[in-house]
Amino acid sequence: MHSIETLSWTGDGHLKLIDQTLLPTELLEIDCRTVETVWEAIKMLRVRGAPAIGIAAAYGVCVGLQTVGPNPTTQALFDRLDEVVNYLASSRPTAVNLFWALDRMKAKAESLRAAAPPEILAVLFEEAKAIHEEDRTICRAIGSHGQTLTKDGGSYLTHCNAGGLATADYGTALAVFFASAEAGKKIHVFADETRPLLQGARLTAWELQQRQIDVTLICDSMAALVMRQGKVDVVFVGADRIAANGDTANKIGTYGVAVAAKAHGIPFYVAAPISTFDLTLENGDLIPIEERDPAEVSHGFGERTAPDGVRIYNPAFDATPASLITGIVTEKGIISPVNREMVAEISHPNF
Amino acid sequence: MHSIETLSWTGDGHLKLIDQTLLPTELLEIDCRTVETVWEAIKMLRVRGAPAIGIAAAYGVCVGLQTVGPNPTTQALFDRLDEVVNYLASSRPTAVNLFWALDRMKAKAESLRAAAPPEILAVLFEEAKAIHEEDRTICRAIGSHGQTLTKDGGSYLTHCNAGGLATADYGTALAVFFASAEAGKKIHVFADETRPLLQGARLTAWELQQRQIDVTLICDSMAALVMRQGKVDVVFVGADRIAANGDTANKIGTYGVAVAAKAHGIPFYVAAPISTFDLTLENGDLIPIEERDPAEVSHGFGERTAPDGVRIYNPAFDATPASLITGIVTEKGIISPVNREMVAEISHPNF
Repeated sequence: MHSIETLSWTGDGHLKLIDQTLLPTELLEIDCRTVETVWEAIKMLRVRGAPAIGIAAAYGVCVGLQTVGPNPTTQALFDRLDEVVNYLASSRPTAVNLFWALDRMKAKAESLRAAAPPEILAVLFEEAKAIHEEDRTICRAIGSHGQTLTKDGGSYLTHCNAGGLATADYGTALAVFFASAEAGKKIHVFADETRPLLQGARLTAWELQQRQIDVTLICDSMAALVMRQGKVDVVFVGADRIAANGDTANKIGTYGVAVAAKAHGIPFYVAAPISTFDLTLENGDLIPIEERDPAEVSHGFGERTAPDGVRIYNPAFDATPASLITGIVTEKGIISPVNREMVAEISHPNF
Repeated sequence: MHSIETLSWTGDGHLKLIDQTLLPTELLEIDCRTVETVWEAIKMLRVRGAPAIGIAAAYGVCVGLQTVGPNPTTQALFDRLDEVVNYLASSRPTAVNLFWALDRMKAKAESLRAAAPPEILAVLFEEAKAIHEEDRTICRAIGSHGQTLTKDGGSYLTHCNAGGLATADYGTALAVFFASAEAGKKIHVFADETRPLLQGARLTAWELQQRQIDVTLICDSMAALVMRQGKVDVVFVGADRIAANGDTANKIGTYGVAVAAKAHGIPFYVAAPISTFDLTLENGDLIPIEERDPAEVSHGFGERTAPDGVRIYNPAFDATPASLITGIVTEKGIISPVNREMVAEISHPNF
């Protein structure tokens, strides 16, 4: 799709990523040559979307380890690894894939503690590339399963951006649309603009346009109306974290979309990789909700649009209870109905 | 509240109004010395809110009639009146108060066809002032009835701006909050920012702040979340037009708020003057929905935030069915339950 990729590892050994805060008016890649740049890119949403954050974090570990040189002592390597992992973990509290990727990198290193440090460094880099490559495969599989839920002439709605920009290259919720189009179905998609940061307007509308999928941009507050008008067959959204009972944290506003879908009898699907499940959390009430800078609401577009000194509540996510979710599309298939048993089954490594 | 009024008639005979598109960063009045300026102010939402539009239109008729001079022929006066009324009617298709005020001015003139033209002009001006003054009285009555639904320590939610800026000076939905505060109740209000034009962020937050009412600004997509968190006791919104069965057209997004309120068992009230009822419309599906410039969504804040060429749907209003409305607070009392019989009864001139 993109002539340049969401994330890539360069020939001279650093991470490059699209600065998504500049889209859709500017398509610019930034170089991350230090772990601080990676942290800043995650924190400031230059790279966003749960899977893409995981990939950035894995590569971020490799970038961070470069300060110890090609042949450090085992102690120096593991000390720096701890430092880098803890630091990157502090960038975004809600995205479970961040912790998932960091834990995976750390576990890989631990499994090699007896090996020579240059070998550990090499294997960690291979692990980051594997996380990147696996994500491509996973997204294709999600698209493939998800497109069984769409039909030629169908009209769908999505919130925020769970597209190629949120993953290695194909997306989760948007993978369903991409795979539908590749299967020859002519579909239409409503993209919620997704205040405050407009990922739907800036990124989803752009990605769908790039792939010649018929898209109509609406404000978040218009979703219930288009549902009432009978213009939405199914809702597909991504996920930042899914609890053991299927409750799903995703971009703020997702819960309201789910409530409206339920009221109109419209199926509501979450599309997400298995890595998004966090079985340590019993339910969605336990998912920590990041609150972001009030200026995202009061100065969303540079200009001040709210009175000085007004109090603002700016949660980045909300949790949608499993009871409102028709199904969860994963790389291993579709969970439906959504409940603790189904989540446990599909999350099992042997499934 | 305001050191200057939403609308006022100046000593030298023209209409002045606050340019609400500049709030909250700039409080500026504009002079309307021609009917074209009044039309433009209504069209561009410099003056907005159903009652305020009615008042502006009534004064607009007086401004428009100034071109015939102080002593025109009856023919010239009525020709110009027709012209001015038809022209002003073309500014906003959804606000029934616009038509209500224009019809009232026209009917008053018709009732005096035999009188001397200077007298007709004088009476029309008195009629416009009466519409203005009646609105003050009506808003106070709405506030007084509505505050019986609030309690000390209560927390409420509103969408868009149905405040002093939408009326002569006290509002409809916000009148409920103002009257509650005047009755000594300490209340809290969530103000939906109300995309695309942010009347909630720019105007409602500002008005509540001016009156020292505890306000928290949220994005529209956060309303369902704060309801789920148990932070909303009652929703109060205004109305642009109410059909004979109680279905209510109001700012886009109101319907989604009503759906979410219903899902959470939260009472949902509309506050509006009787002039908002349009008994010629059987139900809300017949209320014409104005679609506005897509640039309000794609360039909401000057800067482009959506890709070039993307299709945008930008309805200015939606209709909330009576089944989702707990009650309608009018100057004559509260209608509840909301149905055709109750609407007919309260709308009757002898009620």
